[in-house]
Amino acid sequence: MSHGKQFTLYTHNGGPNGWKVAFVLEELGLTYESKYLDFSKGEQKAEEHTSLNPNGRIPTLVDHTNGDFTIWESNAILIYLVDRYDKEKKISVTEEGDKYKLYQWLFFQASGQGPYFGQAFWFLKYHQEKIPSAIERYQKEAQRVFTVLEGVLSKDGWLVGGKPTIADISFITWNRAAFFVIFQGTEVNPEKDFPAVWKWHKAMEARPAVAKVLAVQAARQAQ
Amino acid sequence: MSHGKQFTLYTHNGGPNGWKVAFVLEELGLTYESKYLDFSKGEQKAEEHTSLNPNGRIPTLVDHTNGDFTIWESNAILIYLVDRYDKEKKISVTEEGDKYKLYQWLFFQASGQGPYFGQAFWFLKYHQEKIPSAIERYQKEAQRVFTVLEGVLSKDGWLVGGKPTIADISFITWNRAAFFVIFQGTEVNPEKDFPAVWKWHKAMEARPAVAKVLAVQAARQAQ
Repeated sequence: MSHGKQFTLYTHNGGPNGWKVAFVLEELGLTYESKYLDFSKGEQKAEEHTSLNPNGRIPTLVDHTNGDFTIWESNAILIYLVDRYDKEKKISVTEEGDKYKLYQWLFFQASGQGPYFGQAFWFLKYHQEKIPSAIERYQKEAQRVFTVLEGVLSKDGWLVGGKPTIADISFITWNRAAFFVIFQGTEVNPEKDFPAVWKWHKAMEARPAVAKVLAVQAARQAQ
Repeated sequence: MSHGKQFTLYTHNGGPNGWKVAFVLEELGLTYESKYLDFSKGEQKAEEHTSLNPNGRIPTLVDHTNGDFTIWESNAILIYLVDRYDKEKKISVTEEGDKYKLYQWLFFQASGQGPYFGQAFWFLKYHQEKIPSAIERYQKEAQRVFTVLEGVLSKDGWLVGGKPTIADISFITWNRAAFFVIFQGTEVNPEKDFPAVWKWHKAMEARPAVAKVLAVQAARQAQ
């Protein structure tokens, strides 16, 4: 912990899930040193990282004020951070029932948004051959996920407890991928077709902690 | 609640995630009525179900002894059940740090095992055309997930706390899909290539609660 900050965050310039943890660390005013792993050198699969995280993916968080407690899986990290450091419930909830609704939405993000938006991105950008039926499968699933969110957000504004929480924040990075990339070549216009999702997302991007991290991301990705 | 049982579980004969909740309800000795939705009739997308679960997928659980508290996303349901009803920590953990490790593995199952094993299954069994490069992508990812699990389980036997928990149980149904279907046409032999995963899985299948639910599943799927 030579850097003197509370946390070390193992992360990456490009992947969406490290930024998610940075949003929450900033929201809670916690200090952290980001170690950006170089995937082209396989640093995420190197011993220094896999000894902390056997999955060999980012993010991984080490809490130096809690005996170097180490945790991975971005949404598990978010729960750890608010349980331990969000005593004022700035971005978490107080009601017992709301806690499980919050977990519900975190699992929906982790299992329903992330992987399917991720597959759309993969088949659009990286797969070795163009497979229209695979691209269409995942673009349609992204629309379905936004339709579910639109139904909930058009009534309540936020996913749980009538206020912004880590559940909402967990969606930001893949929302952006959908707005910028995933609906390419479709007739989907997120702002018009999913107005409540758009408004929700823009309200999150306007939060100072989120905006600060997005500026760091933009600067690093421009390098 | 005319059935007189504590829970109503909205589930399905085929999908993996409803059975996961049944395993845990049985482990905890809780009473429940399973409503098997007919996907061919779109019952999961019908108002009766979407008024409880806007995602229109199973499982959905209603707790009649807690004001009909309703929750969906299978792994969020598992956390709710052990927090509230596993006072003896039969399948959950006591240490604070272990709790977050347990969440970490639940998120790994939800985001890393379920969706990718599910895509392998989809491209092998249901996609409108055969796409070898997509099948190969997901078979390789399934191998990667098993390799991560093998590394951990060969040392510790269980994922967290040195004992079986809901984290382990959450993997059962997709493990079975991998053993029976997903590695078809590959040289992978799960029993030989992933001996610690195999042993772990077999130990879970031998638990009376799990065996009871698997027998119900086999009977329903044979109808």
